[in-house]
Amino acid sequence: MRECVQAALIGAGTIGTGVIKVLEKNAEVIKRRLGAYLKLKWVCDIDLERPRDVDLSRYMLTKDYKEVIEDPDVDIVIELVGGIHPAKEIVISALEAGKHVVTANKALLAEEGEEVFEAAERHGAELGFEASVAGGIPIIKAIKEGLCANEIERIYGIINGTANYVLTKMEEEHLDFESALKLAQEKGYAEADPTLDIEGIDAAHKAAILATLAFGRAFTLKDVYVEGISGIEFMDILFARDLGYRVKLLAIIKAVDGEVELRVHPTLIPLDSSLAAVRGAYNALSVVGNAVGHTMFYGMGAGQMPTASAVVADLMDIARNIISGSVGRVPTMAYREASHLKVKPVSEIKSKYYLRFSAVDRPGVLSRIAGILGHYGISIESVIQKGRNRESYVPIVMTTHEARESEMLKAVSEIDSLDITGGKTVLIRMENNLD
Amino acid sequence: MRECVQAALIGAGTIGTGVIKVLEKNAEVIKRRLGAYLKLKWVCDIDLERPRDVDLSRYMLTKDYKEVIEDPDVDIVIELVGGIHPAKEIVISALEAGKHVVTANKALLAEEGEEVFEAAERHGAELGFEASVAGGIPIIKAIKEGLCANEIERIYGIINGTANYVLTKMEEEHLDFESALKLAQEKGYAEADPTLDIEGIDAAHKAAILATLAFGRAFTLKDVYVEGISGIEFMDILFARDLGYRVKLLAIIKAVDGEVELRVHPTLIPLDSSLAAVRGAYNALSVVGNAVGHTMFYGMGAGQMPTASAVVADLMDIARNIISGSVGRVPTMAYREASHLKVKPVSEIKSKYYLRFSAVDRPGVLSRIAGILGHYGISIESVIQKGRNRESYVPIVMTTHEARESEMLKAVSEIDSLDITGGKTVLIRMENNLD
Repeated sequence: MRECVQAALIGAGTIGTGVIKVLEKNAEVIKRRLGAYLKLKWVCDIDLERPRDVDLSRYMLTKDYKEVIEDPDVDIVIELVGGIHPAKEIVISALEAGKHVVTANKALLAEEGEEVFEAAERHGAELGFEASVAGGIPIIKAIKEGLCANEIERIYGIINGTANYVLTKMEEEHLDFESALKLAQEKGYAEADPTLDIEGIDAAHKAAILATLAFGRAFTLKDVYVEGISGIEFMDILFARDLGYRVKLLAIIKAVDGEVELRVHPTLIPLDSSLAAVRGAYNALSVVGNAVGHTMFYGMGAGQMPTASAVVADLMDIARNIISGSVGRVPTMAYREASHLKVKPVSEIKSKYYLRFSAVDRPGVLSRIAGILGHYGISIESVIQKGRNRESYVPIVMTTHEARESEMLKAVSEIDSLDITGGKTVLIRMENNLD
Repeated sequence: MRECVQAALIGAGTIGTGVIKVLEKNAEVIKRRLGAYLKLKWVCDIDLERPRDVDLSRYMLTKDYKEVIEDPDVDIVIELVGGIHPAKEIVISALEAGKHVVTANKALLAEEGEEVFEAAERHGAELGFEASVAGGIPIIKAIKEGLCANEIERIYGIINGTANYVLTKMEEEHLDFESALKLAQEKGYAEADPTLDIEGIDAAHKAAILATLAFGRAFTLKDVYVEGISGIEFMDILFARDLGYRVKLLAIIKAVDGEVELRVHPTLIPLDSSLAAVRGAYNALSVVGNAVGHTMFYGMGAGQMPTASAVVADLMDIARNIISGSVGRVPTMAYREASHLKVKPVSEIKSKYYLRFSAVDRPGVLSRIAGILGHYGISIESVIQKGRNRESYVPIVMTTHEARESEMLKAVSEIDSLDITGGKTVLIRMENNLD
């Protein structure tokens, strides 16, 4: 039996430093659980000089990732460089050199995943990516193994901590979007350029990976319909609350009649649902299986140590396979050959909707709006019309019963072109049946 | 490579029938995920005649479990008989015959676990018991694998759906304990003899199993301090709510200064904590690791199909090991040799407390009670004294800061012997720091 499994870390930034910390701090328990020593041999980074709160002098150091990949002692390469290039070259060349790979790189997997998965398979290598979705929450393991007896029917998730932090602060501290984002940046929850998080791209990356696992064919970022939260106003958060809802940036993955709905957008969810209780930078995923019913997984979706927990879990998983001679025990994508599943165009989804019109405050306005909705077969569930202002536009909020998106967009476009409305109607989808 | 892994089911009651359903309904996806056929060969039950909503005629049938265990085709025996005997004999003899075993039997594992674990190890067999804790929630997998990079610091769990249903109904429908229990029995959430659930024994079984996995030594039911919910009055639920808390039957597993706290008792937890939101027959477990921080796992803690989901996940896990030749890949108890950990006597724990005294409604009463608490070094956090009644006893509710249990019991005993108090003081522990 192998007494030692050796790893090399490429990319010693925040997460990489966390991985070193976990491996050092929990070395004893890791060894006891594996029955072997998990040794970090190399640390590779373009900047080895800058201060870190770990002592790198214990490790072989290099700035050249090729040196690491050429070392025959290395069993597992940890790619924490991030981004597509050179991360892709690192991962592919490590796989080609017969190394197993652990990565937290959701952009790489969601945009170039098929090529990466294929390379892993061709070279008989393991590819661990628990850390790519929802930080420390072991959701990949849960889908590939814990819930493997189920057909996965739906996954709903809050999988971007930055966006959730901003929405939480808007609601709790009565801030507009810009102020909440500024607060998130000050607190370190949002980057200087927050586009990926705020516009839903990061959540869409993760949604593509989750759908890939749940349904067994490779989905990419292009398959995901994405809307971010930058258009959400504090007013909408207040109206939602009046209606018994909370606005969350939700990733929605659903198998419906042989098609897959795959979308990330702001969503009104019931205040008493478990996902509505997920505050700040936490993540949570509801997974519904055809046997298990509703399950939920909750934890820190980002951060140094939670993400490192997931990276090291992958290292240990692969080490267990190396030790027991069972590399390939669980296929990378959990299973294959369900490629018939097509993505449903967002125009064809059915949803309930929250609509906020800006309209003049005159008798007959409501009936004209309702008439157009009725014409497109959309029935209204509730109406709130609060402010009174003869001089300007007032908000009219409606929620609808389930309607088809394409019809809804036609109706809203027609309503927006009326002389009694001003500005673009705000449209937020609703999900009621989350548990 | 093996093309078929064969299993035998012993015990075709509710859960057993669910296992048959999952294997039939999800046969295709199971095969695709395993790359092999998971075949149920035998169904063994003492009553093969009674109506079930599956067709048993597809399977080899027997009333004699020995026949199943003697069949060399059988790789995995599923024990769903329940109770200690003959479940123990079935499991041990299956292991001795070189079979792997999957069981949902928490009583067996919590009371005779060491012998069973030892037999599995001696015979090089796998023992799967995901279904023994929290039904469909893949919590065993999460502790053994998903969070394996962590030292587990604490686990808090709502792991008995019956007790949680009763407490939920008491609060939501303003029922006393007896009426809520009756409702639970009518709805099928409680058995005719509800003792195991209501008195916390079932939760204590599961807590012993969780502690065994988390800390790597065998804990048994005897190690768990247990109090049930039959002493909880509606009044306490109301007072708790006034204080910002909810009463839950909580399993608490904590490593503190080299000792383990292992207890199941009613507990006041903050209304805004995620565990407080767990209603009805759902289960949830908060697991705190030294890298990942706070995680939570939520789902149906019982029921035919959720429990069957866990049983079949274990079958697939073991089948994957058989197929890849890696039996023993993850040790049964995740790891061993942490046997120095001792259970902390409950008298030595420190906790905050909710106290409800019955006392005469006279000036000076509060000061005598407070004086005794002060004498034992217990400081008061808040006091509620609502009712006024010169003729009889009135409730005085106090919450305390953290105090040692032994001192608290002495103080309460002294207070209960005063001439100004009537009846036994109600004492419920509190946990504030759940997230």
